[in-house]
Amino acid sequence: MENEELSIGVDMGGTSLKAAVVCGAEIVQRSEPVNTRECNTPQELTERLGEKLRLLREHFPAVRAVGMGLPGFVDHERGTVDSLTNVPGWYNVPIRQILEEICGLPASVENDANCMAYAEWRLGAAQGMRDVVCLTLGTGVGAGVVANGQLLRGHLGAAGEIGQVSIDYRGRIGHYGNRGAVEDYIGNNELMREARMLYATIPEGTSAEMETPVHLENAARAGCEVAQTLWDDAARKLATCLLNCHYILNPQAFVIGGGISKAGELLFSPLRRYLRTQIYPPHFAKLQVLPAKLGSDAGIIGAARLALDDLSQN
Amino acid sequence: MENEELSIGVDMGGTSLKAAVVCGAEIVQRSEPVNTRECNTPQELTERLGEKLRLLREHFPAVRAVGMGLPGFVDHERGTVDSLTNVPGWYNVPIRQILEEICGLPASVENDANCMAYAEWRLGAAQGMRDVVCLTLGTGVGAGVVANGQLLRGHLGAAGEIGQVSIDYRGRIGHYGNRGAVEDYIGNNELMREARMLYATIPEGTSAEMETPVHLENAARAGCEVAQTLWDDAARKLATCLLNCHYILNPQAFVIGGGISKAGELLFSPLRRYLRTQIYPPHFAKLQVLPAKLGSDAGIIGAARLALDDLSQN
Repeated sequence: MENEELSIGVDMGGTSLKAAVVCGAEIVQRSEPVNTRECNTPQELTERLGEKLRLLREHFPAVRAVGMGLPGFVDHERGTVDSLTNVPGWYNVPIRQILEEICGLPASVENDANCMAYAEWRLGAAQGMRDVVCLTLGTGVGAGVVANGQLLRGHLGAAGEIGQVSIDYRGRIGHYGNRGAVEDYIGNNELMREARMLYATIPEGTSAEMETPVHLENAARAGCEVAQTLWDDAARKLATCLLNCHYILNPQAFVIGGGISKAGELLFSPLRRYLRTQIYPPHFAKLQVLPAKLGSDAGIIGAARLALDDLSQN
Repeated sequence: MENEELSIGVDMGGTSLKAAVVCGAEIVQRSEPVNTRECNTPQELTERLGEKLRLLREHFPAVRAVGMGLPGFVDHERGTVDSLTNVPGWYNVPIRQILEEICGLPASVENDANCMAYAEWRLGAAQGMRDVVCLTLGTGVGAGVVANGQLLRGHLGAAGEIGQVSIDYRGRIGHYGNRGAVEDYIGNNELMREARMLYATIPEGTSAEMETPVHLENAARAGCEVAQTLWDDAARKLATCLLNCHYILNPQAFVIGGGISKAGELLFSPLRRYLRTQIYPPHFAKLQVLPAKLGSDAGIIGAARLALDDLSQN
């Protein structure tokens, strides 16, 4: 570890912004989180972030670069935020330039799910693989795709939005007017809404108990068939999304992290079954379905690593 | 053209095998097609092919390489056919080595839809693009994906099988046990089966007239609402498949060729509409939907070009 370089990773979410000095896959020092919602403009947020970054740099002058993940459409090449999904006011913000001015370090910016995927690929469960899809299952379904040994960004930096993949061409209408997006079925809120609806129809169920996926997990482990059916159904829908990725990308592995992935075999076991019965057997035999390794710090770690990698490539 | 190098392209289909000397996007000389079904083993077929290739080389001694597209899982890197979809007996055939021995030229092998996509990307409608998906709509829905300026092959060479992309997680069971594969809805045979079913239920319709997509095209142009609805419905299903590609890959363009694409605006106009209403507007504004340029020779042209490109890279 002593030869590893230091960089700062920043992970911006809809509610909080976290920054830390990172060495490899280790967090060296965190700064106090910033409440994203207290900041009304990109300028306010970047000023608050600037204070945190200057403090971190004072303690760790060896830091060489800063990377930041943001929740929305980020153009890594141009260094801009095109728009953010749940944070108003962020349109065409030259965030890389702002970061560089704030802290006087070379900066990289990227979509937050791409940062998590980058971390799992460079330092986590998918290390050394040339073709892999890394997912994070939470309020939404985010992902990053590595193809031919490169993070796939696409024409406008919007690749890897697999939460928007349709599993039903006549399905629910989603965020972009698109029908049947998988995250509109298995995102935390939708999953729990469905759970409450089902529980409200059975005598022994009390829908009020169903608040988070952890409740649904406990119910399934306690033998509740309704809960088990819901996990099976979520796995089936997620499997269809992964099948689509498989047939388009032919990855070596799916790495799955985030909220509902913590249900472990409740999700993974039916997921593997739905994949096994829907993929050409010799290909399924060589496809890995792996839990993520880096947990909730993956976004920070990936952003920090990306910044160092960009440095060595420029 | 005089500075362009010559190579041979071979396009193997379920019924016939075609070979030609190619210069750029031009066919210089074709050989007599081989009936694939007359050949019971890979050996028989490659012997018949060998005769054709030797004749072509005698007339064009300047030919530098040979490329071959095959209908199934082809491992370009290892140079083998893993299996072919509709041709029995082809398992683990070292086809590149066989080709090189037959004609004494450096050889490249690739999936047939990838060859068509390669042609459109290097010499056709998608020339110069870094991220593009090229489709061919026929009995099946084939495609090749270019990402980051490279043909995407994936872990086992099976990327780009977008005909298998699911548009309905509870849909029809397809070739690999997978549900809702788009080609099980809009492949020529399925499209026409649906047309005949619908026509059988209406007084003015005679289902017997509905044999090929051309009949359906003529009926729609003549003002038949049933036919127009069928085209709209096919466009809707294809749009869902393309949406999935868009959200995963974020390409600059979709290039569409093959059978039913000849219906032109009957297909393209509703297709663009279904895409426009289901993609984030600033991204849709920069997405092109283009007809293929190279027609039914694209497979030969792409195989021939791939062989030359591989030569210059090795």
